[in-house]
Amino acid sequence: MIYFITSNKHKYEEIKKMIADIKMLTIPYPEIQADETEEVVLYGIEYLKKKVDGNFFIEDSGLFIKSLNNFPGIYSSYIFKTIGNKGILKLMENKKNRRACFVSVIGYYDGKEHLFRGECEGRIAKEERGKKGFGYDPIFIPQGKRKTFGEMEIEEKNLYSHRSKALKKFIDFLKYP
Amino acid sequence: MIYFITSNKHKYEEIKKMIADIKMLTIPYPEIQADETEEVVLYGIEYLKKKVDGNFFIEDSGLFIKSLNNFPGIYSSYIFKTIGNKGILKLMENKKNRRACFVSVIGYYDGKEHLFRGECEGRIAKEERGKKGFGYDPIFIPQGKRKTFGEMEIEEKNLYSHRSKALKKFIDFLKYP
Repeated sequence: MIYFITSNKHKYEEIKKMIADIKMLTIPYPEIQADETEEVVLYGIEYLKKKVDGNFFIEDSGLFIKSLNNFPGIYSSYIFKTIGNKGILKLMENKKNRRACFVSVIGYYDGKEHLFRGECEGRIAKEERGKKGFGYDPIFIPQGKRKTFGEMEIEEKNLYSHRSKALKKFIDFLKYP
Repeated sequence: MIYFITSNKHKYEEIKKMIADIKMLTIPYPEIQADETEEVVLYGIEYLKKKVDGNFFIEDSGLFIKSLNNFPGIYSSYIFKTIGNKGILKLMENKKNRRACFVSVIGYYDGKEHLFRGECEGRIAKEERGKKGFGYDPIFIPQGKRKTFGEMEIEEKNLYSHRSKALKKFIDFLKYP
C-alpha cells in the first residue's frame, strides 16, 4: 500500500483506476513558485518525507499554452480558481495557434526521490464542452481527437492523458524497480 | 547598512529614494504558492536567514483585481512575464468593476521577523499608458488620480504607492524599534 498525498479527489479517482493499492491522504505541503513542475514536486517531497510514515507519492500537473508563453503553467491550479476556463478562452480569442500541452509529474518517495513525467499534446477548444473531468478538461482536446477531456469518461481520458502516462512509468518502476 | 535582497532593480531604485543606507544583494530564494503575500515573504526570510550575514529585508508585491477574483495576486510576477499587461486588459474587456489593489509586503530580519504591509487602492486603465515604472504600472491608476503609475516619476509614484506605504512603516520601525 502506497499513500497518495493530495487534496484533489478527481486525481485520486483517475489514479485509483490504474493502481488499486493506494490510499488518499490529505496533508497540505508548500508548493514553490518555479519554472518546472519537477521543482515543485521535489520541494513537496522534501517537506513530506519528514511527515509521512511509509512510501508515498504526490502529483502536480499543469497546462502549458504555447501562444500564451506557457501560461498558466505551474500556476494552473491558482489560475483556474481565479479566471477559470472562461478567462483562458478570453485570452485565446483570435489566436490562431491553439497548441497546448498538459504535463503531469509524479514524485515517489521510498527512501529516495523518483520522478515520472507524462505529457499530452493537444489544443485549446473554442468553447467549454463536457462536464466530466475537472479543471481545464472541458477546454482541452488531445491530439488527433475531437472530444475534449471534459466529454470523456475516466477510462477514455486515461488512454491519452498526461497523468496516465506518468502513472504508467510509475507502475513500471514499481514492478521492476 | 541593511541588505535588500532582490533581483529587481526597479524596486531597488524606488526604495533607495526613501532609505539611503541600503545595499542591493541578489540571492535567489524560494517563493511558495500561497494565498497571502505575507506567507511568501515569511517563507523567503526563513530560507535567507541562514544565508545572509547581517540584517536584511525582502519585498514582495502583487496586483489584486476584484472582478478577476484577485488575479493575478501573488503570482503577479509570473503572470506579467507570460500574458503581460495586454493579457490583463483582455481579461478586463467589458468589465464595469475595474477596482484593483496593489499590495506590498516588506519582511525585515534582525534576528526576528517583522512584516510591514502597504496597500494602494485604484483601478485598471482601459489601455497601457506611460513608460515609467515597471510591471503593471502602465495599467494602474491610483484612487483619485488620472495618471497611471507608468506616467509618474518615482517621486510622484512614491506619494501614493503600496511599496512606499510599507516602506514608511518600516522606516518608522527602524527609528523607534
